[in-house]
Amino acid sequence: MNFSSFGRKFTGGSGILQLMDDLGKALSEGKPVNMLGGGNPARIAEVNAVYREILQKLADNPDGIESIGNYSTPQGDAKFIGALADFFNREYGWGITADNIALTNGSQNAFFYLFNLFGGRFDSDGQSVDKTILLPLAPEYVGYADAHVEGRHFTAVPPQIVDAEHNGEGGFFKYRVDFDALEHLPEVKAGRIGAICCSRPTNPTGNVLADGEMAKLDALARTLGVPLIIDNAYGMPFPDIIYSDVTLTWNSNTILCFSLSKVGLPGVRTGIIVAAPEVVRAVSCLNAVVNLAPTRFGAAVATPLIADGRLKTLSHDVIRPFYRKQANFAVSLLKQEFAGCPVKIHKPEGAIFLWVWFDGLPVPAQELYRRLKNRGTLVIPGEHFFVGMDTAGYRHAQECIRISIAQEEDVLRKGIAAIGAEVRALYGQARR
Amino acid sequence: MNFSSFGRKFTGGSGILQLMDDLGKALSEGKPVNMLGGGNPARIAEVNAVYREILQKLADNPDGIESIGNYSTPQGDAKFIGALADFFNREYGWGITADNIALTNGSQNAFFYLFNLFGGRFDSDGQSVDKTILLPLAPEYVGYADAHVEGRHFTAVPPQIVDAEHNGEGGFFKYRVDFDALEHLPEVKAGRIGAICCSRPTNPTGNVLADGEMAKLDALARTLGVPLIIDNAYGMPFPDIIYSDVTLTWNSNTILCFSLSKVGLPGVRTGIIVAAPEVVRAVSCLNAVVNLAPTRFGAAVATPLIADGRLKTLSHDVIRPFYRKQANFAVSLLKQEFAGCPVKIHKPEGAIFLWVWFDGLPVPAQELYRRLKNRGTLVIPGEHFFVGMDTAGYRHAQECIRISIAQEEDVLRKGIAAIGAEVRALYGQARR
Repeated sequence: MNFSSFGRKFTGGSGILQLMDDLGKALSEGKPVNMLGGGNPARIAEVNAVYREILQKLADNPDGIESIGNYSTPQGDAKFIGALADFFNREYGWGITADNIALTNGSQNAFFYLFNLFGGRFDSDGQSVDKTILLPLAPEYVGYADAHVEGRHFTAVPPQIVDAEHNGEGGFFKYRVDFDALEHLPEVKAGRIGAICCSRPTNPTGNVLADGEMAKLDALARTLGVPLIIDNAYGMPFPDIIYSDVTLTWNSNTILCFSLSKVGLPGVRTGIIVAAPEVVRAVSCLNAVVNLAPTRFGAAVATPLIADGRLKTLSHDVIRPFYRKQANFAVSLLKQEFAGCPVKIHKPEGAIFLWVWFDGLPVPAQELYRRLKNRGTLVIPGEHFFVGMDTAGYRHAQECIRISIAQEEDVLRKGIAAIGAEVRALYGQARR
Repeated sequence: MNFSSFGRKFTGGSGILQLMDDLGKALSEGKPVNMLGGGNPARIAEVNAVYREILQKLADNPDGIESIGNYSTPQGDAKFIGALADFFNREYGWGITADNIALTNGSQNAFFYLFNLFGGRFDSDGQSVDKTILLPLAPEYVGYADAHVEGRHFTAVPPQIVDAEHNGEGGFFKYRVDFDALEHLPEVKAGRIGAICCSRPTNPTGNVLADGEMAKLDALARTLGVPLIIDNAYGMPFPDIIYSDVTLTWNSNTILCFSLSKVGLPGVRTGIIVAAPEVVRAVSCLNAVVNLAPTRFGAAVATPLIADGRLKTLSHDVIRPFYRKQANFAVSLLKQEFAGCPVKIHKPEGAIFLWVWFDGLPVPAQELYRRLKNRGTLVIPGEHFFVGMDTAGYRHAQECIRISIAQEEDVLRKGIAAIGAEVRALYGQARR
């Protein structure tokens, strides 16, 4: 069958789709796999017990049938939106109303809307300008890469790389925004930026932009007259997988995106946008055309847990410590595998991944990925995360991989051992 | 904030969005409203009892937590897809596999994908052609109208209107496809058709295209080398709100779209596409970019009911007779209101609406809508459903309204009485 140009763009083998297929196929072949590749959250018994309790209540009372048996408006489930507005005002004093919140079918859906609302072709007065989304800190979330309905519209610069300590130990590094390079980008000077976007904590690195960096980005966005989009899928107050001492702020030029996925509810596909009413209105219009209305069951599950504050305490007291422990365990394994090798780990400040840099790796990370897959261990090679950058001449991008820390200890142990063996062989070094 | 051209298109006050806002506002003002405007399915106690039973089972066993606690692949929940393939093969002998089925976040989401995959700009060999979706029978579902990411790409011709009987009574009419007009359309001759699409039963009219009409459309699609897309949201085997004696067929050039909404599960946003593997693959790619993966809770609810055949029997034995009774009741009310008036009802062959034609109505249906809204009765004016047609010089489009029959008898009684009073006043006729 003949597909339109839109169809060809979205079906034409983007890197990440091939990779996802690859991961899916590897898993479905039935061979044992050390799955360090995906973004699935961990199964945490204490958390699932709460969701099971809510499922029971939804079976017992009319809210369950109501949530599956009726459409919401295109803006999303009104009860959940009301509960969220109250919660954010209580916690942060933002003074928002229901007009500041729209729901989407997960965060990816939100970013599809936002990148096309603020990037791509802008027509006015007979003039046509292509605008781009500025990603101030590469690497960034790979799911952004293909979101534009026409072309690819991201701009990024290489990060500053600084040595860092973690729990008092060396062997870590940290990315920082290169503001000087940002401000001198031709797209910035030419007024061709449509929005600034960052994830915080960052997927894939676990980096957390400091409050000072956020303040500078906020100021830059205002100077450029564009919104600052913050992907808070791993941030506070839920799932709260963030260990550095930072604050969450919002103002009417900020578009703050939350998700229920990493509190353990990815299957319900529920994203939350907090923004100025005109943005909420635009997202509602897109919901109407693309989805008629967002799905409601996630809202039904989360509403009571937002209303009584339990989602926040569950995140802070259970989910956060769980991933922190996982991160420390995975770090200790990596340190054992790579003692004496030129391998550094990005300082784990949050999210559910470790980002590992094999300095001087003799093959591109894509090839390391292929070799590890043959050994039954899946990771994601780093190149794909440098969205908006030409990585051909940028060796660092090909020396990094992302590994998930959401898996059970045994999987982490086996997977990291496999990475160790493969990379040490590439370096020509024995295990110490 | 500045929106892109894409953003402006989707937020720039399309007719139907204004209307939906209007309906939403009217409902939220708290005044009593006879809601004959929306597309919400009825609450049927016997059906909801089954869903409640399933909710209880999902709370009791691990499937519930699994469905909310993990992503599916971008194609959709594998268990549900497997159950559907088995079910369709058992019922219709189509010989399909999991490669023929993709899930979406509801039917609207499926049509957003399909209309952009097969309509819009096609580039090849340096040539650019704009292709359009052929809607063979106007009026058609209003939700299609704004689905294209660029421009509007639908083509339709006025229907043939023939007198019809219903339950042995006159006063009805029926639309038929004007094949002669279709085949002479400039777009057809110029090879500018990307796909053919029809809903069956038709939303808004309750028309059901005859098997002979479907065979002709199938042949035309093959001649043009384009797929035939069938919107089966109200059709057999679920929700089975279809009363004429027709058959459901599928072949590899057909894209058949099902929905869980009208069996009473609109809140779970689950659409099902049965098509050739290359279409399923394209939809999966779009799911990945637009939504990461489709929502899973609808799949969890429906899987056991598809596997044991209960969704089919529930549809045939409960849902179908329910709406048939509602249709007959609403018809009897309309007949009482409009005895002696030049008012005809489209023969109710399925779906959850009646389509009423006020021949020679002195004002456009849009104005009738406005007046009825002031009286607390909401309907949808007909103009909006003539997607792909210029209705300016086509008076029939402005003489029709769509009313929902999903409401309780008392709402139907009051709403239809209000329509009667208003329209009789416009005609200058007293009630007989």
